[in-house]
Amino acid sequence: MTAILASNSYGKSAVRLVKVSRSGERHEIRELTVDIALEGDFESAHSAGDNSRVLPTDTMKNTVYAKAREQSIGAPEDFGRALGVHFLSASDSADRARVTVTEHGWRRLDVAGAEHGHAFERAGNEVRVARVVVTRTQAEHAAGIRDLLILKSAHSAFSGYPRDGYTTLRETEDRILATSMSAEWRYRSNVTDFDAQFERVRRMLLETFAGHDSKSVQHTLYAMGEAVIEGCDAVDEITITMPNKHHLLVDLAPFKLDNANEIFVPTSEPYGLIEATLRRGV
Amino acid sequence: MTAILASNSYGKSAVRLVKVSRSGERHEIRELTVDIALEGDFESAHSAGDNSRVLPTDTMKNTVYAKAREQSIGAPEDFGRALGVHFLSASDSADRARVTVTEHGWRRLDVAGAEHGHAFERAGNEVRVARVVVTRTQAEHAAGIRDLLILKSAHSAFSGYPRDGYTTLRETEDRILATSMSAEWRYRSNVTDFDAQFERVRRMLLETFAGHDSKSVQHTLYAMGEAVIEGCDAVDEITITMPNKHHLLVDLAPFKLDNANEIFVPTSEPYGLIEATLRRGV
Amino acid sequence: MTAILASNSYGKSAVRLVKVSRSGERHEIRELTVDIALEGDFESAHSAGDNSRVLPTDTMKNTVYAKAREQSIGAPEDFGRALGVHFLSASDSADRARVTVTEHGWRRLDVAGAEHGHAFERAGNEVRVARVVVTRTQAEHAAGIRDLLILKSAHSAFSGYPRDGYTTLRETEDRILATSMSAEWRYRSNVTDFDAQFERVRRMLLETFAGHDSKSVQHTLYAMGEAVIEGCDAVDEITITMPNKHHLLVDLAPFKLDNANEIFVPTSEPYGLIEATLRRGV
Amino acid sequence: MTAILASNSYGKSAVRLVKVSRSGERHEIRELTVDIALEGDFESAHSAGDNSRVLPTDTMKNTVYAKAREQSIGAPEDFGRALGVHFLSASDSADRARVTVTEHGWRRLDVAGAEHGHAFERAGNEVRVARVVVTRTQAEHAAGIRDLLILKSAHSAFSGYPRDGYTTLRETEDRILATSMSAEWRYRSNVTDFDAQFERVRRMLLETFAGHDSKSVQHTLYAMGEAVIEGCDAVDEITITMPNKHHLLVDLAPFKLDNANEIFVPTSEPYGLIEATLRRGV
Repeated sequence: MTAILASNSYGKSAVRLVKVSRSGERHEIRELTVDIALEGDFESAHSAGDNSRVLPTDTMKNTVYAKAREQSIGAPEDFGRALGVHFLSASDSADRARVTVTEHGWRRLDVAGAEHGHAFERAGNEVRVARVVVTRTQAEHAAGIRDLLILKSAHSAFSGYPRDGYTTLRETEDRILATSMSAEWRYRSNVTDFDAQFERVRRMLLETFAGHDSKSVQHTLYAMGEAVIEGCDAVDEITITMPNKHHLLVDLAPFKLDNANEIFVPTSEPYGLIEATLRRGV
Repeated sequence: MTAILASNSYGKSAVRLVKVSRSGERHEIRELTVDIALEGDFESAHSAGDNSRVLPTDTMKNTVYAKAREQSIGAPEDFGRALGVHFLSASDSADRARVTVTEHGWRRLDVAGAEHGHAFERAGNEVRVARVVVTRTQAEHAAGIRDLLILKSAHSAFSGYPRDGYTTLRETEDRILATSMSAEWRYRSNVTDFDAQFERVRRMLLETFAGHDSKSVQHTLYAMGEAVIEGCDAVDEITITMPNKHHLLVDLAPFKLDNANEIFVPTSEPYGLIEATLRRGV
Repeated sequence: MTAILASNSYGKSAVRLVKVSRSGERHEIRELTVDIALEGDFESAHSAGDNSRVLPTDTMKNTVYAKAREQSIGAPEDFGRALGVHFLSASDSADRARVTVTEHGWRRLDVAGAEHGHAFERAGNEVRVARVVVTRTQAEHAAGIRDLLILKSAHSAFSGYPRDGYTTLRETEDRILATSMSAEWRYRSNVTDFDAQFERVRRMLLETFAGHDSKSVQHTLYAMGEAVIEGCDAVDEITITMPNKHHLLVDLAPFKLDNANEIFVPTSEPYGLIEATLRRGV
Repeated sequence: MTAILASNSYGKSAVRLVKVSRSGERHEIRELTVDIALEGDFESAHSAGDNSRVLPTDTMKNTVYAKAREQSIGAPEDFGRALGVHFLSASDSADRARVTVTEHGWRRLDVAGAEHGHAFERAGNEVRVARVVVTRTQAEHAAGIRDLLILKSAHSAFSGYPRDGYTTLRETEDRILATSMSAEWRYRSNVTDFDAQFERVRRMLLETFAGHDSKSVQHTLYAMGEAVIEGCDAVDEITITMPNKHHLLVDLAPFKLDNANEIFVPTSEPYGLIEATLRRGV
């Protein structure tokens, strides 16, 4: 009859910051967005309105800014872990801090053929994500890429599927495969070189996507995950999500034109959604 | 050393439809968006590119349209279950179908003081969500509301929280509490009147939000969930997510003006994010 | 050879505020977003980096908050004009202030059948816009509605159009007409009751949309504008923009089903875009 | 008393296409979005529902696909003009066709240090815009860039501005200047090498932004426009829009930390909005 608090979390999301590091006319800039969530014994806040254990989310925000000033940021995973460790020390009632650090890239402007020292343009849509979970006894690090729009215009087929009374799709041996890929992978506990690992995983995902002879989105997704598991010892598990951003071949026959896989309509909806998790076997 | 397929799902998302039902000049319209995901033994599709078990997502889309025509839609939960049952029968390899049906409301236009028969306007931002999971042996129904923007301008406080070296927030006994609430609740297995239950849960959430003497977002969120668990026998468990859409009191002192909780700046980021799950006790 | 500054404007956009007015437990809330742009002689700021005439946009923001506190807001048009008049007095170099005030509606929550005093929900997607242009000698007021999603499921046809080698569309005497209407109208100089006028124009637009026997979007758009020009003496000119949010009749023949205008797919792109301006004749 | 149709336009927007051109394993892909609007004598469609002169927007969409197949696309300006010329020939009642072609870039994936032949990733947020207006006697070409996010972390100041009772902003000689620049420029009538011109204008805008010693957004915007007018004979006029994406210096004093222009909060709203048009003098 009574309601029980089965789980709870709270924190501050979308804490944005830019840190500028100067070396004369040459600057480095980092743009991060931090999300913090604490879990723990906050029952009395919920049931009795007792805030005595509730570290305000406004304080969390202030802390992110102060910590960004006090220390070098390093890899997003390192900054996230430092924040998580701090928040557990700042809140006795918390037993778990989840910190997500998203990095939006900036690329130096090219001026007269050379990289400029302190002028930048946004480096693509893609964001890098670091996700750290800190408890009283350990820290777990995961990393990811979100919304990386990629497309291949050859070596992608879809055929041999079952047919029923609702089938109208034509089989094809040559289609466009496009997706806005998101991937997230979990690091083994002894990993420390997060920037290098990120670049390695990213490269394996993209090179496999490019080179794969695709029978389906599932087939390519699996190959990408397999390449990461087999090629990156640091990674234990990877989840890849690939919305199939369909490119429909336009029927030009009514206009007495053929269309030998030349003109496609990219569509936003509906879309296929393919997701899988691959894990390292024993 | 080898990669193992730990889990996988695939399906079609964002299948949109409008169904018009006519009774002379009086029409009923329903606008639904359907997402389908199948889980099961699709290993060979992933590892070998064998599509012989992969019911195409294009066929899923066609099926949604055909089923919307063949039968009355009823509650979104009922339509979702019918689709889930169909897809399990259409795919031997699937052992689980997850179907989400989102309903976007339309409200009749008012013409000369009367409801018009076949002209409508969109009924708010809020969407109703039905989430059904069908296996070979059972069906589970969950329902929800997404992005319901609500605000109360009285009986909301936040004080008595711990302070540390990063605290700057002032305690307040009177603030604006605003949120874009999302909630999702699980129905007990014997529930069938999903439309009536939805209205009941929605009403309890909103009436509790309005009437609560809030010490914090957590406090109000818990009271809302508790009201549902205690007032709706049909509901086993509810998860409520309340981003704190902060309204900051503007400091008008530099302009020699007071501001007795009159002028606020609504901000988008950063935002507090509060989430909890309440369950029926035994 | 030399570059000439042909025109320029600057100001602050997206200044958001909520004003709470209290009468015991019954509160009124207004949520406004203000955009300000000044035009005038700011040549030296552009060509020489001389800021001595540039009233900072940060000061504009502060002024909006202070003015919201100092005076009652009234109709958005009145608040916008007061701001415009102020900014011309605050900036000698400006000869024109354009102020746009957008109002996002809140509707009282219904609790136990009665309107609640201080708890609200967002009132639909639609926003009301007031656009005021103030010069040293006069003020012009325009008003509008943005993104009002409306749909009619009867009395909408599209036929009798020319055909060429690229035509595949079928003529129809019965389709869904849906649009996300935006409209903006200019008031005559003697108008003062902006809230009442807004309600009147809005009602004429919607009632005409509902009741019209539509041969095309153009036909209905014109009827709506004509109704406003003929029915609202306060309005001199109106521009209406109606994207045609196509609802495609699904072809269910492959599944041996008919589809007597029952199942439609709402699509986002591509979309027709129809726009016209109607003016009061002499 | 009577309503007069003062102006009107109609057409199809968001016609999306991808064209693949093959040369063995090396593919070129182009992604374009086309918007078409016709102006002319369409009075009878509006006032009488007579569609006999209304070339359907669905036919426009079909034509875009057919033309993309029939001819090489070339510069977006060339494709837009070809479409405009066609639509005037296809519609006797039209006297003006406005065609906007937006190009979303794709960049080859790098595989083992080499550019891949047929695998691509999205090339940034920025879009290239071509805007062509075709009448019975001439064609005008304009081009632009939309939403190019750029930032400079040095050589940007804002000081020397007037102060009044609403001023709280502090003067600064060193701030972050960030904007999501949009620019649109008009070509002289004899220009034909639109791709080369686009690259030239884009480079001048970015190099000027990077190298400028900025006293204000106006100052830098003007310098950018001046560089284009002086350095690109092909351009007659340019309009630049620069929202000031404020980066606020965080006050860390409450935490006993200094902040020597190191930690900033990027904010979305409110934002300054600066716009100017520069024209070639005589």
